[in-house]
Amino acid sequence: ITLVDLMPHIRRVLAASGLRDGSVNIISRHTTTAITINEWESRLARDLKSWLLQLAPPDDRSAALEAWRAQEPINAHSHLACMLLGSSECVPCVGGELVLGQWQSVMLVDLDGPRARTVGIQCLG
Amino acid sequence: ITLVDLMPHIRRVLAASGLRDGSVNIISRHTTTAITINEWESRLARDLKSWLLQLAPPDDRSAALEAWRAQEPINAHSHLACMLLGSSECVPCVGGELVLGQWQSVMLVDLDGPRARTVGIQCLG
Amino acid sequence: ITLVDLMPHIRRVLAASGLRDGSVNIISRHTTTAITINEWESRLARDLKSWLLQLAPPDDRSAALEAWRAQEPINAHSHLACMLLGSSECVPCVGGELVLGQWQSVMLVDLDGPRARTVGIQCLG
Repeated sequence: ITLVDLMPHIRRVLAASGLRDGSVNIISRHTTTAITINEWESRLARDLKSWLLQLAPPDDRSAALEAWRAQEPINAHSHLACMLLGSSECVPCVGGELVLGQWQSVMLVDLDGPRARTVGIQCLG
Repeated sequence: ITLVDLMPHIRRVLAASGLRDGSVNIISRHTTTAITINEWESRLARDLKSWLLQLAPPDDRSAALEAWRAQEPINAHSHLACMLLGSSECVPCVGGELVLGQWQSVMLVDLDGPRARTVGIQCLG
Repeated sequence: ITLVDLMPHIRRVLAASGLRDGSVNIISRHTTTAITINEWESRLARDLKSWLLQLAPPDDRSAALEAWRAQEPINAHSHLACMLLGSSECVPCVGGELVLGQWQSVMLVDLDGPRARTVGIQCLG
């Protein structure tokens, strides 16, 4: 599990778009990456990783998972954690500024990586 | 817990709208159905069901739940799982195509069904 | 953990905006408040609180959390629960009415309060 701060990318796309008032939609383009908004902070990142691995453990011995693993990459837990965090967020933009609080960052959570990943960032308005 | 692939419905609504560039908003209209984006795959569906029932178990013996059940349908766990997965997703649309990855599908997760359900699909732009 | 029904605020902003067809985006502006959609009901609120405290317990003894607490407010669990519930929701608006089901309310979940909090509500269309 790795985290990427998307704010520099989002700010660059937003500036290039010239959007003043509207919405910035951020969407994951993979079934094992999620989009979340929270504090970009190394200890929180560590806590998030251990918490997700605890809630959706990769070493789960359920029969369903065993059957899955016989045929597929062992990453069912990555899909489940992805659905827990969610795949899209919409951030309002007013006067060219994102309506986010001081400590909020939009982050990509790679639940089965790190790998080369893409994110959709759309400025609408 | 049952899953419904919403992609045929979304693609039909999108085609009928003629939208080229904008956003497709999908929203659950019930407190025990959720909208999620992930792989439409029978084994993942099975894993998702058992995982949700484990995280929000219907047989929880807490006093709060017991009191609830005395007066209401026994589905508090369906409401909780609904909030875990989330009720809405926004998918950007560019050139008439949804910005989704190859394996991503928007799904309705019925946490207290199956029943007749409705979903809001909006094309905006 | 406290819950606030945002519907009166959202309806007031929506009416003032004069929006007929579009989208209402609601976003948390704090890293320890979440936006969720479900039934506004006191017993469900109580169940949600106990469930979140169980899934992301404040008394977790992991080394990572201990190290965190040595330097910060003891609220890592509030951040985690915030990411579980999510920070934004988009509700379609058609003919001046929100496309929500009878029992659905947009709520703010304060995971580290109650405190004075702000929410972003945007009418777009």
